[in-house]
Amino acid sequence: MVTWTNLDKLASYQELANAKVVNLAEVMTGENGAERVKKYNVPMGAGLVYNFASKKVDDATLEILAKFAEEAELVDKFEVLYNGEVVNTGEKRLVLHHMTRGQLGEAVVADGVDKRTFYTNQQKAIAEFAKKVHAGEITNAAGEKFTTVVQIGIGGSDLGPRAIYLALENWAKKNDAFKMEAKFISNVDPDDAAAVLNSIDVAHSLFVLVSKSGTTLETLTNESFVKDALKNAGLDASKHMVAVTSETSPLAKSADYLAAFFMDDYIGGRYSSTSAVGGCVLSLAFGPEVFAQFLDGAAEADALAKNKNLMENPALLDAIIGVHERNVLGHLCTAVLPYSQALSRFPAHLQQLDMESNGKSVNRFGEPIDYVTGPVIFGEPGTNGQHSFYQLLHQGTDIIPLQFIGFKNSQCGMDVVIEDSTSQQKLGANVVAQIVAFACGKDDANANKKFEGGRPSSIIVGEQLTPAAMGALLAHFENKVMFQGFAWNVNSFDQEGVQLGKVLAKRVLAHDTDGALKVYSEMLNI
Amino acid sequence: MVTWTNLDKLASYQELANAKVVNLAEVMTGENGAERVKKYNVPMGAGLVYNFASKKVDDATLEILAKFAEEAELVDKFEVLYNGEVVNTGEKRLVLHHMTRGQLGEAVVADGVDKRTFYTNQQKAIAEFAKKVHAGEITNAAGEKFTTVVQIGIGGSDLGPRAIYLALENWAKKNDAFKMEAKFISNVDPDDAAAVLNSIDVAHSLFVLVSKSGTTLETLTNESFVKDALKNAGLDASKHMVAVTSETSPLAKSADYLAAFFMDDYIGGRYSSTSAVGGCVLSLAFGPEVFAQFLDGAAEADALAKNKNLMENPALLDAIIGVHERNVLGHLCTAVLPYSQALSRFPAHLQQLDMESNGKSVNRFGEPIDYVTGPVIFGEPGTNGQHSFYQLLHQGTDIIPLQFIGFKNSQCGMDVVIEDSTSQQKLGANVVAQIVAFACGKDDANANKKFEGGRPSSIIVGEQLTPAAMGALLAHFENKVMFQGFAWNVNSFDQEGVQLGKVLAKRVLAHDTDGALKVYSEMLNI
Repeated sequence: MVTWTNLDKLASYQELANAKVVNLAEVMTGENGAERVKKYNVPMGAGLVYNFASKKVDDATLEILAKFAEEAELVDKFEVLYNGEVVNTGEKRLVLHHMTRGQLGEAVVADGVDKRTFYTNQQKAIAEFAKKVHAGEITNAAGEKFTTVVQIGIGGSDLGPRAIYLALENWAKKNDAFKMEAKFISNVDPDDAAAVLNSIDVAHSLFVLVSKSGTTLETLTNESFVKDALKNAGLDASKHMVAVTSETSPLAKSADYLAAFFMDDYIGGRYSSTSAVGGCVLSLAFGPEVFAQFLDGAAEADALAKNKNLMENPALLDAIIGVHERNVLGHLCTAVLPYSQALSRFPAHLQQLDMESNGKSVNRFGEPIDYVTGPVIFGEPGTNGQHSFYQLLHQGTDIIPLQFIGFKNSQCGMDVVIEDSTSQQKLGANVVAQIVAFACGKDDANANKKFEGGRPSSIIVGEQLTPAAMGALLAHFENKVMFQGFAWNVNSFDQEGVQLGKVLAKRVLAHDTDGALKVYSEMLNI
Repeated sequence: MVTWTNLDKLASYQELANAKVVNLAEVMTGENGAERVKKYNVPMGAGLVYNFASKKVDDATLEILAKFAEEAELVDKFEVLYNGEVVNTGEKRLVLHHMTRGQLGEAVVADGVDKRTFYTNQQKAIAEFAKKVHAGEITNAAGEKFTTVVQIGIGGSDLGPRAIYLALENWAKKNDAFKMEAKFISNVDPDDAAAVLNSIDVAHSLFVLVSKSGTTLETLTNESFVKDALKNAGLDASKHMVAVTSETSPLAKSADYLAAFFMDDYIGGRYSSTSAVGGCVLSLAFGPEVFAQFLDGAAEADALAKNKNLMENPALLDAIIGVHERNVLGHLCTAVLPYSQALSRFPAHLQQLDMESNGKSVNRFGEPIDYVTGPVIFGEPGTNGQHSFYQLLHQGTDIIPLQFIGFKNSQCGMDVVIEDSTSQQKLGANVVAQIVAFACGKDDANANKKFEGGRPSSIIVGEQLTPAAMGALLAHFENKVMFQGFAWNVNSFDQEGVQLGKVLAKRVLAHDTDGALKVYSEMLNI
């Protein structure tokens, strides 16, 4: 039994709110700073480490944070979740995305089946299908191999799988694991589907339609778009389409699809990259072995999240340092800054993961709360961001906590030496320099050239962005967001905030409007 | 003569701070809401309109805002700028990006030349060069046509031109104006250049190296990368490269380039899309006629920004409504939400434009200021964002003002009718629905399904995203950011905040480090 309590009712939170805030510029200067960087380092799985030396915490703060994690029963709540309690109380659902990559606790039976078996069976079915496609056993009607896979989905069916595909595309090419190019159609904007269709050879393309309910308007609309294109090319759409959906959806047993793979209601869209939603497109693009490595990396991170010792649980630590920054220090935003071009869309995935999970104003019992919750997440890869919005991060009037990510090695292994260093070394040197610049600042007689410092960041460092590292990264942030949701006592697994817009859009399309809605509709020619 | 005054010293700002704040849900409901949507509509040039009905202003607020614009001499300061005063006082430079698209006031002579003539001469030289490339008069060594243009640049040499290329690529294809595919290499991450080089046919590629100083480390590093690739393909790099730089840079008269086109110190990187920085790549991609239409659209928006009547100056209005939201209502972020997939990278450009210009803590005289300045800018295209971070925008604990953008018509003209509406109509219906949902909210006995409303937004509406519309959009936001910089009394045209990181990165690469910097460097294997 765990007790679900509002943040501001916890004694340890009050203690945290009253604790002395670390002077970051001071503690990060000199030998003390060097000691912090060595010490404040936690393994994350898959060879990654989470380093929080440049956060506004010290041993005294960490002691309070540990008390807080215990009083809020954060790890116990995770245990309750993976053991199959209905943690998504709003929608009355279990929360089982961890089970797509391992069995963390007890067997969970739902809808009459063992859920771990259900998820691994889907993985096996997808692996078998992908292998047949790669081997040319499943082909187009002319008996030719498929060369391209196109995911049709939106939100969680798009952002996570797309970010992971982009993250691993070059790694796969370098490591002879690249099987098929992947493309993504998401937006209801007809120009999105048109541009993708114009860029591919539809005769050799396999389309993966992803919709849990089988009723997502954008996705069904884009499916029609694609079916028209296939028809216009004289092709049989049913030989080019696969469905990823729930077993109860209208898509599940339709003759319109070559095959159907299943997820269920216990995995929210934003947590679905390790389910069939990510599994189908990624197994087709890179082969099922690569997808399995990715799952293994995620499983490593999940295992660490069970740890009750705060210093051995990086997701928990990251989560409650974030709560300190949000609720005690009052920072609204967090910038995610991967020093890796391959992670160009990972911030967009985290933006959904975090903001859709914890952008809530009521607690899990539907009662209004008196404290701020989920932050705004944004970010771009470094060094690009340095030449863009870092000006505000360094010298703007508000402090934005930063999450850096960096790797020792590139993915492609192509590099040049200019002025005695490789590009990869320059990339690493820049992220290191930024952390210290943000933390320590620099005084200057000219106020325009002065850097206040005291701007907190953490960095995740890995050997290379491999499938396993990507899995661990993904799971780390999923678990961080989950722990923060527990700390804020919100339900991180529903999204009632998306409903009103849907209802009003239907009214606009039915011309059932008045007042402002009507005049706006006329402006847009609807 | 204008007087540069801090925001909090203006009587009209104090009046604004004390004025009654409009209850948005109330005023946007019923016939009053319909009237506001009809009335609060300002033409922006190129067929666009700026509609601010769902902002927290009414006629009384607008009266104070007009007083504020006048007392702060915002339009007069613009006049001083385009007439060639040294408005970038930190770097002691004129600010002349408007002159790349027209002559707004007096002739400006600098460095011994008329600057309007200088910029138009560069446009002519680029147009001539581009036409020769398109006609096959300038070819590779084998006499074959170039098919691809690759921009090598970072920050302002990347984000703006890239966003505009993506915005117009499909329009150009549909309108038979598409000449060459464009690609972009920006990041010092070696995987960025490697991936682009792996995706193109270097033998038929023309590379545009963009660096004002000719010393940008990332850009020169990537140039070497590209030269290696050309050499490995047995090609003469000097037959494949063009430079865009300043006349005094080491690149200006080098035999390493087929041609060189020039910008100068009076155009900051983030304001350089309408100069040779955007002109070269966009004229090559779409033809100089399309680039000229884009400049004409920008010129239309610039002309409106001269208007002293607030209701006829959309950039000014947008700017000071933003100051009201930032300084009086206390909102840190603004989300830019284009309902157009073609504008997918426009938010990233605006992020640089805005955050690098106004993310400052000192006024233009280098004195610390006591009020907040530039906001955090982030955004993704709708409807994608609706399935991602809109949850927080609707029900999160902080209010995020929103900037929507929508068009009546798609670019490609391919569409399908599903459930009695086209995709384009669904797209429009969604943006309209969101505005009203954010403004008015919805009550519900279940607090989890309740929408507070009162969340302000504006929308820019256009017929279609054409080159002229894109030009007007770009210039609108440049001018908005400029007016806000005037209002905050900061220098929007320098970026001292990027310097410290550069200095420290050099020290890391030279192994001239101690303390935290040294230990971090070891972590990254530098």
